Amino acid sequence: MDHHPERLRRLQASLKRKKLSALLVTHPANRRYLSGYTALDHGIHESAGVLLIPARGKPFLLTDSRYVLQAQEEARGYFVRLFTKGLMPGLQKLLPELGVKKLGFESHYLLHSAAGRLGHLAASLKVELVPLTKIIEPLRVVKTEEEISRIRDAVLLNEEVFQEVYPSIRPGKSERQIALAIENSMREKGADRPSFDTIVAFGTNAAKPHAVPGGRILVKGETVLVDMGLVLDGYCSDMTRTFVVGKPDSVFRERLRIVRRAQLAAMKVIRSGVTCREVDMAARRVIREAGYGDFFGHALGHGVGLDVHEAPRLSGHSRKKLRSGMVVTVEPGIYLPDWGGIRLENMVVVRDSGCELLNTDRTFLDL
Amino acid sequence: MDHHPERLRRLQASLKRKKLSALLVTHPANRRYLSGYTALDHGIHESAGVLLIPARGKPFLLTDSRYVLQAQEEARGYFVRLFTKGLMPGLQKLLPELGVKKLGFESHYLLHSAAGRLGHLAASLKVELVPLTKIIEPLRVVKTEEEISRIRDAVLLNEEVFQEVYPSIRPGKSERQIALAIENSMREKGADRPSFDTIVAFGTNAAKPHAVPGGRILVKGETVLVDMGLVLDGYCSDMTRTFVVGKPDSVFRERLRIVRRAQLAAMKVIRSGVTCREVDMAARRVIREAGYGDFFGHALGHGVGLDVHEAPRLSGHSRKKLRSGMVVTVEPGIYLPDWGGIRLENMVVVRDSGCELLNTDRTFLDL
Repeated sequence: MDHHPERLRRLQASLKRKKLSALLVTHPANRRYLSGYTALDHGIHESAGVLLIPARGKPFLLTDSRYVLQAQEEARGYFVRLFTKGLMPGLQKLLPELGVKKLGFESHYLLHSAAGRLGHLAASLKVELVPLTKIIEPLRVVKTEEEISRIRDAVLLNEEVFQEVYPSIRPGKSERQIALAIENSMREKGADRPSFDTIVAFGTNAAKPHAVPGGRILVKGETVLVDMGLVLDGYCSDMTRTFVVGKPDSVFRERLRIVRRAQLAAMKVIRSGVTCREVDMAARRVIREAGYGDFFGHALGHGVGLDVHEAPRLSGHSRKKLRSGMVVTVEPGIYLPDWGGIRLENMVVVRDSGCELLNTDRTFLDL
Repeated sequence: MDHHPERLRRLQASLKRKKLSALLVTHPANRRYLSGYTALDHGIHESAGVLLIPARGKPFLLTDSRYVLQAQEEARGYFVRLFTKGLMPGLQKLLPELGVKKLGFESHYLLHSAAGRLGHLAASLKVELVPLTKIIEPLRVVKTEEEISRIRDAVLLNEEVFQEVYPSIRPGKSERQIALAIENSMREKGADRPSFDTIVAFGTNAAKPHAVPGGRILVKGETVLVDMGLVLDGYCSDMTRTFVVGKPDSVFRERLRIVRRAQLAAMKVIRSGVTCREVDMAARRVIREAGYGDFFGHALGHGVGLDVHEAPRLSGHSRKKLRSGMVVTVEPGIYLPDWGGIRLENMVVVRDSGCELLNTDRTFLDL
């Protein structure tokens, strides 16, 4: 089923409510969500194109000669316009053509410098410019069952990759070698790409939640933290496992159990209507009461979909309520600079009656 | 030799000339160039930290708990400050501490929404905010011999990877399989990562200059276009080869020769003092005179360094002059939607007396 017309209809209804004549879409995941156009930006300076969505009528995809054929093949409901001299001259022609008087743009995905150029253009055309954040993201936050099924496929492929590489995580290997093996396996098994740079951290390196895999060689008895995600057909996975190669000592076992209890406490609380804050607190309380409250520095989790980090944020600061169909990570951790770190991360779907675990892999969770 | 103090000195001199009290550095390559801190951003929304460079005195690196250990290890000349509640509260404390009255920021690497938040903060602290573009980039555009040597290493590793994978580019293989093999080989040979998503395009797919490798299977006699780059120790390579698996027909041979002649014509013109426009025109003239003027839609080349696309731009619109020590690609092409495309890309160093070719691989260039 093609969901793009329905998504477009909902966005256009929202544009009409806001009395906007059109919206300029620059965010790559929003662009894909609305049009089906799968091209990736090479960083924020090298856009593969933008959408111009009028409040009424057929929308436009503007791109350059490098992408025009792909845009025509993929963005079926769109007029594809080729711009040859950059986006601004393209818009200079199109905005008056469509009679745009009030143009929204994605303030959270347009550089200050580009917004300045757009401002000049709008002024010269007497178009009012309206910076917006989160006009498309709220549409994306609750997933359809089809999207959930694609996310589940990504999670299951993620577990398959992990299980394939796991037996090769042996003393003598470097963090970098293992990260490489994981990313190679992802690609061989058909993932589009990793959803972020794979984290493999040994021993004290695991104290850095975003450690970069380096030349450090695994020694028997050391902690291994693997945080990995992939993109499959546009949708992301994200999973963390922490384990010991060899026999874990009592300190590791105790701390792992605390992190796992924190994860289960959060999962117990998750259901439609609960605030993000309550979920974060449920996990944090377990860690605090075990005496590690100062060593869990990050938020408990985040939404996952076309982006690996998207709304909602399971943070102690967020009073937003979970809704059925949201997909989030649950990833408590304990990090001690001189010792190392433990993080466990699974993905769940928020349901009316509780949470549905997307992961099936239980290795190392129940020590 | 540690170049960071010298780079900092030059930047601080430029801040003093502009009467700025400090500069906020958000661009990842600029951050690395000035501090040696190698962490990567996970997209523009997930910064691994920012620099605050006062016009006088020791600079600061602000980051969160995920990166603070790495920052302390790598950014030796910097005070590393941990911020726990986001960048803005961190700056709210630090700006008055340093007596900042006039703060520059990188308009081309700060989102409109983030600039809005920074504007509110600045107003509350009575700090004047100055959007800047290209304050650090001009320092980076001319490379030191040490940087050139690192770029050369990246180019040579790039060629080694290409030569390793080349024999496996046979009928029956898909674009995607070959792109995968190339990226795996890069990582196995010690590259940090690809410098962009590898392009492998067969037959008519090569008509898209930024084709995404797909399931298309190579047939004997078809064109193969490979555009690949890697990052080695932070510095980038970028190389394109186009060839035929089997016996090239006379049309392919003729068009390849035109593209190669265009490349050589540009290289003949390149030297310190020549405008970017003149170089672009030298290649474009060859293609136009051969009757393909409408089928070379992109600029001739771009600078390469810590970023794979950086200044200068070898474009027909640029009247900027080349300077000795710049490193640029020379990549003319011919693209015909119903036929396919040919692009040849090498990297050269601009010298006073001409250009120095960094590539050694001559395969397919001289058919």
